[in-house]
Order: sequence, then C-alpha cells, then structure tokens
Amino acid sequence: QQFSISFQQPSDCGVDSYFDISSLSCVKCGPNQVSSKSGLACECQTGFRVLVSNGASITCQQCPEANQVVTQDGYGCIHCSGRVGENGKCQCPKGSVLVERDGNGNPLTESRCEACNATEPAFSAPDRTGNRCVRCEDSFINSSQSCVCGSSNVQAGGMCFPSNSLPTSVVPNVIFSQLASSVVSAWFSNFMYSSAAACLLFSNRTACQSLGNMCVMNMHSFSTINNDACGLYNTVYRTTAAQGSSQDISYWRANLPWLYYGDQLGLASRILQSEPLPVGFSFKGAQKNSNIELRAAVYSVRGEFLRWEGIGGGNLQLCPDTPTRQQSAFTFGTAYKQSCVLSVSELLNGYPEPVFYDVFLVIQKPQEDKHLLAVPLLNTKQQFNGQFTNEGSNMNNWLLTRRLMLVDTLSGRQNSLSSSPGVIRVASNIKIGFQLVPNTQKGQVYPPLMTVTYSDIPVTDPSTQTVTVSFSLEYTMDQEEARIKTDIALGVLGGVAVVHSLLKTASWKRRIASPLIDLQTLMKFLVFYAGDLANVFFIITVGSGLYWLIFFKAQLFVSVLLPLPAQEERFVVYVGCAFALKTVQFLHKLFVQLSVDIFFIDWERPRGKASKHVEGSGEAKSQASPVSIWRTYFVANEWNEIQTIRKINPTFQVIAVLFFLEVVGFSNLALRDPSSDLRRSPEAYKPPYSLILRYGVASAMWLCIGLIQMIYFTIFHERFVEDKIRQFVDLCSISNISMLLLSHRCFGYYIHGRSVHGHADTNMDEMNTNLKREAENLCGQRGLLPNSDTQTFQISITNRLRAHYDRIIEPINRRSGPSRLVDASANPCEQSTKAYHTMNRFLGSVLDHAHREMDYIVKDKLLFERLIGMEFIEPLDKSIFYNDDSHSFADVLFYGNEAVLLVFDTLFFCVVDLGSQNFILAAVLTYLQQLVFRLIRNGMGRRNLASKTLVDQRFLI
Amino acid sequence: QQFSISFQQPSDCGVDSYFDISSLSCVKCGPNQVSSKSGLACECQTGFRVLVSNGASITCQQCPEANQVVTQDGYGCIHCSGRVGENGKCQCPKGSVLVERDGNGNPLTESRCEACNATEPAFSAPDRTGNRCVRCEDSFINSSQSCVCGSSNVQAGGMCFPSNSLPTSVVPNVIFSQLASSVVSAWFSNFMYSSAAACLLFSNRTACQSLGNMCVMNMHSFSTINNDACGLYNTVYRTTAAQGSSQDISYWRANLPWLYYGDQLGLASRILQSEPLPVGFSFKGAQKNSNIELRAAVYSVRGEFLRWEGIGGGNLQLCPDTPTRQQSAFTFGTAYKQSCVLSVSELLNGYPEPVFYDVFLVIQKPQEDKHLLAVPLLNTKQQFNGQFTNEGSNMNNWLLTRRLMLVDTLSGRQNSLSSSPGVIRVASNIKIGFQLVPNTQKGQVYPPLMTVTYSDIPVTDPSTQTVTVSFSLEYTMDQEEARIKTDIALGVLGGVAVVHSLLKTASWKRRIASPLIDLQTLMKFLVFYAGDLANVFFIITVGSGLYWLIFFKAQLFVSVLLPLPAQEERFVVYVGCAFALKTVQFLHKLFVQLSVDIFFIDWERPRGKASKHVEGSGEAKSQASPVSIWRTYFVANEWNEIQTIRKINPTFQVIAVLFFLEVVGFSNLALRDPSSDLRRSPEAYKPPYSLILRYGVASAMWLCIGLIQMIYFTIFHERFVEDKIRQFVDLCSISNISMLLLSHRCFGYYIHGRSVHGHADTNMDEMNTNLKREAENLCGQRGLLPNSDTQTFQISITNRLRAHYDRIIEPINRRSGPSRLVDASANPCEQSTKAYHTMNRFLGSVLDHAHREMDYIVKDKLLFERLIGMEFIEPLDKSIFYNDDSHSFADVLFYGNEAVLLVFDTLFFCVVDLGSQNFILAAVLTYLQQLVFRLIRNGMGRRNLASKTLVDQRFLI
Repeated sequence: QQFSISFQQPSDCGVDSYFDISSLSCVKCGPNQVSSKSGLACECQTGFRVLVSNGASITCQQCPEANQVVTQDGYGCIHCSGRVGENGKCQCPKGSVLVERDGNGNPLTESRCEACNATEPAFSAPDRTGNRCVRCEDSFINSSQSCVCGSSNVQAGGMCFPSNSLPTSVVPNVIFSQLASSVVSAWFSNFMYSSAAACLLFSNRTACQSLGNMCVMNMHSFSTINNDACGLYNTVYRTTAAQGSSQDISYWRANLPWLYYGDQLGLASRILQSEPLPVGFSFKGAQKNSNIELRAAVYSVRGEFLRWEGIGGGNLQLCPDTPTRQQSAFTFGTAYKQSCVLSVSELLNGYPEPVFYDVFLVIQKPQEDKHLLAVPLLNTKQQFNGQFTNEGSNMNNWLLTRRLMLVDTLSGRQNSLSSSPGVIRVASNIKIGFQLVPNTQKGQVYPPLMTVTYSDIPVTDPSTQTVTVSFSLEYTMDQEEARIKTDIALGVLGGVAVVHSLLKTASWKRRIASPLIDLQTLMKFLVFYAGDLANVFFIITVGSGLYWLIFFKAQLFVSVLLPLPAQEERFVVYVGCAFALKTVQFLHKLFVQLSVDIFFIDWERPRGKASKHVEGSGEAKSQASPVSIWRTYFVANEWNEIQTIRKINPTFQVIAVLFFLEVVGFSNLALRDPSSDLRRSPEAYKPPYSLILRYGVASAMWLCIGLIQMIYFTIFHERFVEDKIRQFVDLCSISNISMLLLSHRCFGYYIHGRSVHGHADTNMDEMNTNLKREAENLCGQRGLLPNSDTQTFQISITNRLRAHYDRIIEPINRRSGPSRLVDASANPCEQSTKAYHTMNRFLGSVLDHAHREMDYIVKDKLLFERLIGMEFIEPLDKSIFYNDDSHSFADVLFYGNEAVLLVFDTLFFCVVDLGSQNFILAAVLTYLQQLVFRLIRNGMGRRNLASKTLVDQRFLI
Repeated sequence: QQFSISFQQPSDCGVDSYFDISSLSCVKCGPNQVSSKSGLACECQTGFRVLVSNGASITCQQCPEANQVVTQDGYGCIHCSGRVGENGKCQCPKGSVLVERDGNGNPLTESRCEACNATEPAFSAPDRTGNRCVRCEDSFINSSQSCVCGSSNVQAGGMCFPSNSLPTSVVPNVIFSQLASSVVSAWFSNFMYSSAAACLLFSNRTACQSLGNMCVMNMHSFSTINNDACGLYNTVYRTTAAQGSSQDISYWRANLPWLYYGDQLGLASRILQSEPLPVGFSFKGAQKNSNIELRAAVYSVRGEFLRWEGIGGGNLQLCPDTPTRQQSAFTFGTAYKQSCVLSVSELLNGYPEPVFYDVFLVIQKPQEDKHLLAVPLLNTKQQFNGQFTNEGSNMNNWLLTRRLMLVDTLSGRQNSLSSSPGVIRVASNIKIGFQLVPNTQKGQVYPPLMTVTYSDIPVTDPSTQTVTVSFSLEYTMDQEEARIKTDIALGVLGGVAVVHSLLKTASWKRRIASPLIDLQTLMKFLVFYAGDLANVFFIITVGSGLYWLIFFKAQLFVSVLLPLPAQEERFVVYVGCAFALKTVQFLHKLFVQLSVDIFFIDWERPRGKASKHVEGSGEAKSQASPVSIWRTYFVANEWNEIQTIRKINPTFQVIAVLFFLEVVGFSNLALRDPSSDLRRSPEAYKPPYSLILRYGVASAMWLCIGLIQMIYFTIFHERFVEDKIRQFVDLCSISNISMLLLSHRCFGYYIHGRSVHGHADTNMDEMNTNLKREAENLCGQRGLLPNSDTQTFQISITNRLRAHYDRIIEPINRRSGPSRLVDASANPCEQSTKAYHTMNRFLGSVLDHAHREMDYIVKDKLLFERLIGMEFIEPLDKSIFYNDDSHSFADVLFYGNEAVLLVFDTLFFCVVDLGSQNFILAAVLTYLQQLVFRLIRNGMGRRNLASKTLVDQRFLI
C-alpha cells in the first residue's frame, strides 16, 4: 500500500534503538550507545563520554585513562576523589558538593568534594543539584541555629522542627469507608507531620492549607483520635485559639483553612435556615436576576492558592458537555441534572493530583461591592465519632463543612507518590440545593447547600472500570401549605359531592317510582358519588396543575417553586383516582344509554282500500290499504345515526391538542425551568419534565380546545350549517311519527311528531306542497298542545301507564329470552308485530287523552327543578308532561353528555401521558379509546333500538 | 450577613499588601516590605535584607555598612566588586559568573566576578542563572571551536551557525489571507532562521519539525520566494535530496517532516482514487468493521514529538460534548456534524501554543501488525504561487499536504512572545470525507481526505469575540449511475403513461359519444396524463426511497452510501411533481363525481283508491292512492351517506402512521447512519435526517398500513361486520327502487332494484313476511333478467336515449339556471315534479323493453374490455347493459377511488414532511386535508344529488 507505514512507538524500540521523530520509526543507535530515557535519542553507555555531537548524532568514546570517569556533563573524563556512583560518575557524601571545574570553568583533572559549612554565619548546605553550597532552609536555622537538624529536633518533609510540640507518631491512614478498608497513604506519611508542625510552629500558610486538604481527603471525619489528619487539624485549631478568627467568622481560625461549621451537631438548621440571602431572585422583568454566580478559591494539594475560579464551564461538572448546556445549570429555577459514566483510566490521567475548592456564592447588591457568601457543604461520607451522621435527612444530625475536592488519586498511593493508587475517590454526586423562604414574594432563598457524595473505587483494571458521576441543582420550597390547601378543597368539595349524589339518587328513586332503599339504591348512590368525586378530583388536579403552571412560569419575583418529582406522587394518585372514578361514571352512563326503552308512534291512518292480490286464488280482494312502514324506518335509521354524535369533533380534538402540544410547542411549558418559551433551541439544555406541569398544560389545552369547539358548534355550526338534533325533531314532525323514550321506569322523553297535514305517507307532489305550506305558515303549529310549538317534553308517567306499557311490550321482550315451553306454539314474529300495532294504538290513544285513567297534563318545569334535575311532583294520578325546549332527550345520546365525555377523554389522555411521558402515544390511545367506545355505543345502541322498536336491524344502516 | 466576606483577589492588593491565602483578604506587609510578584507574600524592599524569617512573616533590615548590597539569596549583605544591578544586587558582565560564597559555602565579604574560559579545553560559559561556568552549546564549539560565536559565524536562536549556508535575511511574515494582511511574527523572527539552519547544517530533528510547523502556520503556502517559512523548508528539502526518503515514501525526506504530496498540481486524483484501502467496511455481521480508527503523531510547536494520540475524545473536535456523542463520529457511515460557537478568550487561554497533528488511518488486517495510512490534507486557504488552488472542487488543481493544527495563537504575536496576539488562526471547519469505490460489494473505500478551512480572527475584544467551528465526516459515492437508472425508468414509464392516457381519452370519447378531437379532448388527455405521470413519479420516488432504505440500512458489507443533502434536490423535485400532478388528478376526479346524473326509478304502483279530503269544499273525492315517496327518500339518504366512505378508515390511517413513526420509532430509520435500531438512547449522537430515507419510511409506512387496512376491510369487515355498498344494493331491491347513474353522456351504471314481491310500500307485517320469504328462497330472484341475480350493470346508452333523457330533465335543470322571461309563467316546482313523474314512467318503460326504438341488450363485458376500461362496441342501435357484479358504480364515490385517494394522502403527508421535517405536523395537516375534502365532497355531492333526483335536501341528512 502506498503511503502506509508500520506503526511503531518509542516504547517499542529496544534499548539499543531510538525513535526517529521524523520518520516515526525505530533507528539503531551508534556503537557504545543506548537509547535515552525518553527513547527519542541515543546517549553514551555508562563509562563512555561524548566525543563529537553534531545535533543529530553523537560519537562515544571510552575515557582514555584508567580510573577516569565521565564528567557530569558527559563530555569529559575526570579522576574521582570520592566514590564513583552507580551511573558511573563521581559522587560526594551528604553535605558536600561535587566540583569538576574551577571557578573560571576550566576542567580539573581530579574532582573534589567540598563540605558545605553548616554553621553560622555560613548556614550553607548543598543545593538540589549538589553543585553549590547555598543558604539552607529557614526552619533548620530557626530550630537548631545550624543547617543540621540535630537530634533534639525532628526533621520531616524537608524541614526541621523543635520536638514536643505535636505527637510525633501520626496515623497516616486514609479511611475508605465504602470499602471498609483503610490505606496507609504515602502522601500522608510524607507530609502530614511536617504540614501540621509547620502550620502550628511557623504559621506556614501553605502548610496549614495542606493539612486542611488532608483532612478533606479523609472525608472531614473526626473522632477522639487526635493524630489523624482531622485530629491534627483540630489540635492546631484549638491550640491557635489565641490567634483569633479570619473575616469575623468564628469558625474560621486565622492562618487555618475553614473546614467546619463548629464541632458539634445541631447547628445546621441555624446556618441553613436562619437568614435568607440579601438579594432575591426574579425570573423576568427589568430586575431579572436568575443567574447563580458561584466562585471558588482553588488550592492545590500542596496548599498553594491557585486562583479564584468562577464555577461553571465544567469545573465542578465532571461530565463533558457543551458550554451552553453546562452553563444552564446556573439559571435559578432550572432543574438541572447531568450524569454520565467516566472511565477510571481517564480520571487517573486527567487528575494526577486533587485540587480543592472553597465555594462561595457571589452576592452583588446594586451599587455595592461584590460579596461572597460561604456555601456550606454536606459530605454524606463524613464520619463523626464513627457515625455517618450526614447520611440521614434529619438536619439536626448534620455537621456542615467546607472545602470540596473532585477526584483524589493521590491519597490512595501506598508505597510511594509515584506508584499507582490502590483506591481512588471521586465526588460522584454533587447537588446544590436552594430552598425558598416560606411566603416570600421577593424571591428570597436561604443560603444554598451543597451535598456531595464520594465514591471509593478500588483500582483493579483502570481501562475497563467506570464510575457514574452526576451534578445537579435542586430547588425546593415548603409544600406543606399547598398540601393542606388541597386537602381542605378536597374535603369541602367532597362534602358537596355527597350532597349532590344524594340528590341525584333521590331523583333517580323518584323516576323509577320506587320508595324502597335497597342494595340497588346504595349501588346507584355509589355510582353517582363516583362521578361527582371524579369531578372533585378533576377540578382539584386541574386547578393545581394550572396553579403551578401559571404561578411558577409567570412569576416575576420567585414566590413558588415546583414540587420535586418525589413530591408529585400524591398528585399522580389524585389524577389516578379521578380517572378511575370517571371511568366508572362513564361506563355506567354507557350502560344506561344502552338499555333505554324507545317506541315510535305512527300517527298515519290508512287512506283507503287497496286491492290485494291474494296469491294462489287469483282473486282481487279489497281491504284497507296498508300504512307504509318506511317512514318509521327512516326515523329509526336517523335516530340510530345520531346516537354517537357529539357537541365537538372528538378526532379533531385529539389532533388539535397534539398539534398545539407538539408542533406549536406548548409541551415545552412543562419543563422544569422558569422559561415560558414555546420554542427551544435543540442545542439548549433540556430539563426534565414536571408531571404536574405536563398535566396542567395537557388538561388546560384539552379543555380550552374542547370549549372553543363547543362554542363553535353551538354558535355557528348548529345555527348555520347543520343541527342533527333539531333535524331529527323536524323529521319526526314531517314523517308524522312521535317518539316515546323511557330512560327510567317512570321517566323519559317524548317527541311529538304528529304531522300538521294529517297525512305524510304520500307522494312527492304532496310532500312538496306540505313543506311549502308550512314554510308559508299556512297550516297549524306542530306542538302537542294546540297553538304551541313545543314538540319535546320530559315526561313523568304514572305507574299505571308504565304497567300497561310493560304488559303490551312483554311478548317482544320474551322473544329475546330463552324459548320456553309455554309459548312454543305461538309465532314469535307475528306476536311482536301484533304487540307493535297494539302499542301504537295504545300510545296514540293515551296521547289523544282517550284513556281517562291514564290521562296526562302538560306544564312547565320550575327553575329549581331544572337546576337540581329532580321533579317535585310525583305523578300519582296523571302523568306529567314538562315542556322542554332544550332537547334534553339528548341525555340518552352522547350528545347530551358532552361534559362527561370530554372530561373522560381529558383524563384518559393525561393518564396515558403521565404513565409514558409521551403526548403522541397519549393521542393515539385516546383516539383508539374514542373509536372503540363509539363502535360499542353504536353497535349495542343499534341492537337495543331494533329490539325495542321492532324495526329490523337491516334498516338501521 | 453571616458567613459572608468581601471579594478580594491578589491583584486588588496594593504594592504594600499581600493576599492572605487563609483569610482570602489583603493584609498589610511589615515595614520596609513590598508584596512579591505573585502578590501572595511580602519581600524586603530593594536594599533591605531578610533578618528573620519564620515561615509566616519576615523582618527586613537595611544592610549595616555603606556600599553593601543584598546578596542573591536575600539574607546577607555584601560588597560588590562589579556593578550594582537595577534590583539592588551585584551584577557581572557577560561571560562572567557572580561568586558570593566560597566553595564551602562561607560568605565572602566582597563578591567576585569570574570570567568563564571559553576556549579549548574548557569550552565554558555561564549557565542560565549566571552562577557557574558550564560547557557551552555544541553548535558554538562545532562552528567556532570556542564558546564565542565569532564574527564569521551567525548566532541565532541561542545557536551558532557557519554563514553562507542559507540566506541570512528571512521573511518572518505570517500571511493572513482572509484579512489581506500579514504580521511580522515574533516567533518566526526569533526561530525561523535558527530552525532552518540547525535543520540543514546539524540535521537537528526538532529544528526540522519546528521549521515544518512554521510552514504549516503559514498555511503551507509557497511561491517563488525562498526565504519565507515554506520557502526555507523547500530549500532544505531540495538541498538534502541526497539523504534519501523516510519509510520509502518519496515525498518524505529523511529528517524533515512530510508536508507535501509533491510540489506540482495534478497529483491529487492519483493519491485519492488510485488504490482503495486494503480493508473493507461492513456494518453488521461477524465481520463487522465500522470503526474508523485514526491516530496522529503530535508535535509541539518547538518540534518536539509529544506522543501518539488516538483521534477521538475531542482532540480534533473543538466543540465540547459528551464522549459517547464525540466518539460516534468515527462509526463508518454515520453522517456526523458537530458545530458550535467558541469564545476567543477561551481559545487564547486554552491554546497558548499550537500543537501539530500528522494524522494516519489505522489499518488492521487480521493476523497482521497495525499499519498506518497517511491521511492527505486539503487546506483550502493554501496558496500556490499566490492562487488559492484548493478552494475549487476541481481535483486537478489541488495540492495535497499533511500536518494539521487546530488553534494558532502564537504566530500572530508581533513584538514579543509574551505579548498578546494580534491575529489568531482557528481550524474552523474540519471535514473528513470517505468515497466508496464504484461497484464495490466489499465495502471498499478510497483513502479518506481531510479538508480543513482556517479562519483568521483579528483579536480586538477577546471576551466578546466568537468563532464558529465545526467538525464533520462525510461519506460519498458516485451517484451518477443511480441518476441514470432513475432517468431510464422515468422515460420508460413516462412512455407507458402516454399510451395509457391515450387509451383513457379514447374511452372517454367513446363514452361521451363524441367523435371530434377538440380542445376539450386535449384538456382531458392532459388531465389523464397528469394522473398517470403522477403515478410514474410516485412509483419512482417510492422505489428510490425504499431502495436507499433497504440497501443502505440492511447491507452487510458497505456497497451503497446515501446521497448528500445537496444531491437530494432532484429527488425532492420528483416528489413535488408527483404531488402536484396527483392533486390535478384528484381535483378532476372530485369535479367529475360532483356532476354525475342520478335518477331513482320507483317501480311501485298505486294499490287502490284513496279518499282525499279536498280542502275548502268539504267533499271527499276518490282517486288513486298516492305511492309513498318515503322509500325514495330513504334510498337517496343512504346514497348521500355512502358518498365519502372509503375502503380504509382515513383518520385511523393518519393516527396509525404517526404511531409507528413517532412512538414505535420508525422515524429513526431515516437517520443518516447505518444503525437500524428503532430506539435510540437520548444521550446518543443524533445524525441529521436524510430526506430520501424520511420519504422512504413515511411512504412505505403509509402504503403498508393502507394495504393492511384495505385487506382487513375487504376480507373481514365487509364480510362479517358491514358492507355499505352491498347494503345499498339490497336496500334498492327491498324498497322497489332502481337507480340510474350517468357518469358520462352515454355511459353510466344501473342498479336494478325492482322488488321481487311486487310491492314494497307496505306495513311492517308485510315487510317482515317479504324479508322472511326471500330469506327462505320462496320468491323469484332479484336480477334484471329472469332467473339471474345480477343487479348492477355498467350501461352504454344510445344517443337517442340520452337525448330523450335530456329533454325530460330539461325543466329541472332550468330551475337552477337564472330565471328567464319565457317560462316566468310556469310554476318551476310543479314543472319539476311533472318531469320527475315523466322520467320515472319513461325510464320504467325503457327498462321494461316497452320502447322499441330505445331497446337494450344485456351482455357480459370482455376480459380485455375490463382490463383497459373501454367498451369496444358502440351503442348505435341498442343500448348495452354490461353485467357488473363488482359494484363498479362505486367509481363515482370515494369508495371506488381508494388508490387515488391513498396515494394523494401519502404524497400530501410526505410533501408536508419534506418541507417541515416534522411528522406530527404532516399528520395534523393530512387529517385537516381529509376533513376538508370530505366536507366538500359531502356538501357538494348532496347538492348535486338533490338537484338531479329532485329529492329535497332536507331529507338528505
């Protein structure tokens, strides 16, 4: 292959080759040469000096004379006065320097070892390279007045301390509590004593910070032991009490880092909930202040102050992400959570040493300097006298601290600082929580609390090991008040619901004309109560949803914050209740509608004689010409068709809701952030959804569109395009057919359809003439009473009438029952036609006041009767026909129950969405639900119609 | 506020304060002290020495004796033998070292300056701190045999070169071609000559790399000038021709970095398209190989080899993102594009020095070592003799190069290396392109090409300036073949369409019985052609969509790659054509359906005499009892209702498609990557959508679900639940009403509905008896011909019959025209009823063969006639009734045109989606479209029905 090379890297080249950085391949070294430590060049073997070096290559030569060794620079040969070291070069004893050239740079023939004068006034010791004598470290001079530490002092960490100041035996253990093990840390062994001593004795600030860092690396844990990291910190803290505190903060000792908020439990609530921040947060408007600015003082593990660093841009967020998304964590009110899985090997490479953050919240009041408020830290892995006091949620057991580290790969190194660590510790879960001051109107919050959870990971195979880390911001407020208000509303409305259900039950008892309170009554009451309670739950949940939606999204100054996902459970239960109860009500309605009694009364009388050709005999026989059944068929067919029409278009409803939620983007209102934009950039951070807000948006959208549709259909469509219900009533009138509808035993509806022209069973000429005459007001009015227009009535019938009705209808009903021996002889079909004719005649005569004992009166319903849906007068003697211009017979159709259906659809949609968080799925399932119930209602309704009115099912198409 | 501090930082503390790292505040220094450079501690003022230092604080004291100055270590006082420097300490002349202590570290009372011996054998010069004499740099010794460079040599960059080897005056300009300016770069001024000289004279490898880097920083641009960066590189390249090449690659000179693929234009195609990679890519299966492994040799700007680095994890991807998403760039076949806006200040902080990448593709054949294939680079900003030859798309003008840098903030520094840069250069657009070998079945690709575009940004206000950067991978294949195949298919099918349209036109001419070829004929032909052409476009686009979907997503070894978005335009135009033409066809169909002639023939004859009560006179008059019109109303009403029923449920169709696309996740199949998973993790990288695949998925889904629905409705629903069309035919028969339907002037349909019982206008008893008799096969058959069952016919009527029909219908049609003077006297309503009766009688008698001159015959249609939809026999003498059991009269309803409607809906959905890339919006609009056209068809159809059949609109409900 052209332009292809084989892959080699410096570590692949052997000891006698080097890696040529131009050709990216291994090249042999010259004679007497070996590759250097980096592998990128050659150097002379031990005992060989560089003879010629021209940049690219060198020539090596053994030193000419015996006993000569190569000089430090590698170019010369020299005799050693002292020892020869392992590298083949001269070596001097401790405290001496090696001299190979004189002061003017002329090489000596024999090297010298010069001892550095350690005493006053020289105070000198060899420098780090061992080439010169320079002034030694201050602590040596201070402690021993010499550059030798002396036996009465303690030398540690390159410094010299007077003894007796601190316990010399320290516990250099780092406790990894998750692994139930501890590691003797090389870092602690090397520097713990010296840091503590330098901090205590010399007030060395970096040493103090370094000691504090060790305490942090040991999870701030302290106990009665006083010689582990935090023990030493506390010893120093107590010993230096005389030095006073920094910045007027009593827990912050001068020179020491501030690590603890006191050394007792029980102070946390005083720190977290005593005083709100001086500046309030607001989401919108001119005084918009929704930016959380955090700033940290950053220290290296050695205790050096590195810089002030603004938090954001990924310094606490270990998961990589785009800056825009990462920055959105610091917008007040945006529920932020970022988590990812990191590889241990990347952590080992990226964080060779931990850095430490002292986090502050920047407070910028107008016309004032910046102030910083210390952010307390809750370390869940902290031990207090061996107890994990910070793990629970009881604030009184917490011990708040400061100073945070992210990744510690240092303290777990056991033998030396360059060995690889046995255990690493990662801040796997950092959460910053804000709590709103109760009843604030100005967006006041308490100081934030940072909760950190560290994970201890034993390093076994770094390249495959992973650790899950997350960073989140959480905003809470006291939800107790909202809960109580909801409970009160539930109690009050629940009580009203009981009364309403009792009323309904009473009305129902009246309508079935049964005075007994039996199990059925109880069941009915429960069903009614289910419906009313469902409405209560629905009102409360929609109210809550809208409350949170409006108050959270529209607030200028922050005064409410959303419930956390865990706090939403109660709400979800309420929605579930609403849905379950509404389903009961809906199914009950459906069942009732599928069992109403219907009869079509044909007023048409035969016009004359028809000559009937009797088959077989060939004779023509004259008899009354039959009244055509086709008008009844027509009316029944129309009734069949209007069974499932609704005041809205349900499919359009589903599609429109979906359109507004998903295409226009109203679903973005349900995100847990203060923004009320409908369009979000795809690059922006997308917070999780709030279930309450989703429910609020979805139900509001559903109800709004439903309402708009209802208004459109009522105001415009039914008036100017088509009103199916009115059409049906008109059809009854034109076709000379009345309709009797008994929804209860003694209650129902009556549509008066007696033609004003006397006959309707006629040809096109006459029909057209009739229609024209009526249009020109040339004939009587259609009403039941003379000179009235009222065609529709609610009727309360007497028991007697009902009993008669039942007696006539009996043979028909028996047809659908199991066949019995007693009437096996009779032709069921013939019987039912006979019953039909009997019923037709009977009802016609009742309506014509022909039956004295089953007479009726017509009256208006009282306003109050209308309101509570119950008749005050019991029809004991005469049946009562109540005028009803509002077509309330539609109550036995879908049309008259739009409220129940709409709420049921809304709840169905919302429940599916709460379960799946997917509006599209909710829309699809709602559509299917509507389809299925429409099919059931249509199919069963048709069967009921056919069986009750004796119209053959084949004509109900 | 408790726990709050004011914000101070080291730079805020004045010259006499230091920043206390414990208390994070400024603290005053002691007397005679100033703050140190870092601001974190105090040091003694000039002329003061440290008397006591205890770690935390120091005490300063002026040197006791006059003429004494402070020693270098700051603790002692000393007399100077030489000058006193600006810092108040002793200073020695060049070439000398300062001695303040003797060899044993004892302080001297007076400092000495010792000159270093520069000549052989000492070869010494002061070290960097000026404290000791050490061996000087090799180049000095090599060039001048001394540590002084001498006048005959050139000293540059800390090295000493013999003169005459290179032009001493170099052009240290960096050209920023976008800004049309050049900058005299401090880096180039300092190191360009020395790098070139060291490379050429000493074969110093890092110097060679450094020189190459400068050429890269100057955009690889070369011209006839031989003393700018690339000029020097080329000079060295030519001069060292004798050294041979590295790794057998002729463009790669030993010791030099490989920068160019030759120095002539025109070689690019040989490099890019001569030889495919030895390893093919495959998406799936056991030999899955879809991982692109890139590896880069990374060099610092100084020419040091830093490491081998695997590309990925963000080293070429400047935009931060999660590792998962970033890594998905390197899955073969995934169209990857990541872009973002970076702040200039972040770039300045994050990239103080550029690093350079030599990128290779790792080739890992089974059982072989890793090989690396050099990835050529196309730098669009490269100039070749002043021309931007790489900017065009003509491969023959390209000059390919190697070595890439990302951010260069160094070369733009003008005065010194520590000054801030005037201009920075960013690789704002990096694209890696793979091209498939034509006709490969093994996933072979040519070597990838990396295209880089640099942006030059003049730094004016770094904190607000931004730069947009992007990183993308692109996969292409030769689309010419696919284009040609599409064109061929289009041509062939287009020809077939012409023939088919001609046939249809001929059939239409036959059916309207007009032999003339006039403008109307031409228009009709064009409309038919539009429909056929729409089908052709539809077939081709769906075919292409499915082709790409199946072949791209399902391939094992890569053999096809998706067209780029720019290559999809043609496809979108085809879809647009299909939609536009289909709309024409659909609207035409709709118009034709809304103007058919319909007449219901009532076979019922009066049964007897009815006594009619004549108003006004009070007398009863006997006349033929009228035949009830209600059966006609019923039939017309039913016909009105079946106008818009379809073979599928169109709303269910929309919802189901939406469900499968968005909820089940089929839309993920349209993503530009090889994965065929329906569910994607929300964290995963989401490639852009391919329009072709979106169309393919959507149309396939639409057609599939449509087909399934059609099968369900035909096989199950119509057989076991309800068949509206058959119901209508049955209804005709039961109601004793025939239907004549003339869709063309002389062509139409006839439904024979003469009741087998003679009478249908009867009461319930008789109806039930009739139905029962028919069920028990006790009566004749329903067909037009005796003993046949065929009730539905296609009819070709003679011109004479049609003329008669028109003559009778004339008064009715006139009614809807404007009122004219001539018939102002006649009652239009009466006239039309008269016409109705006349027509009823006339058609009845024609069907009863009562008119000799307008007789008809019944026959079967030939198979071929059926196939091409045209009648061979012209009805000259007798009308012809063709038996038609397949209910083809549904052609004048939506029911019979399901194919057109389904394709129209599909195209509507897809066109909206192509425009908006939003399936939900497409679904919503498709639903609305269906709704609107259904309303139009229903409303206008109802009006047509009423006007043609004289049934009052009020009965069509």
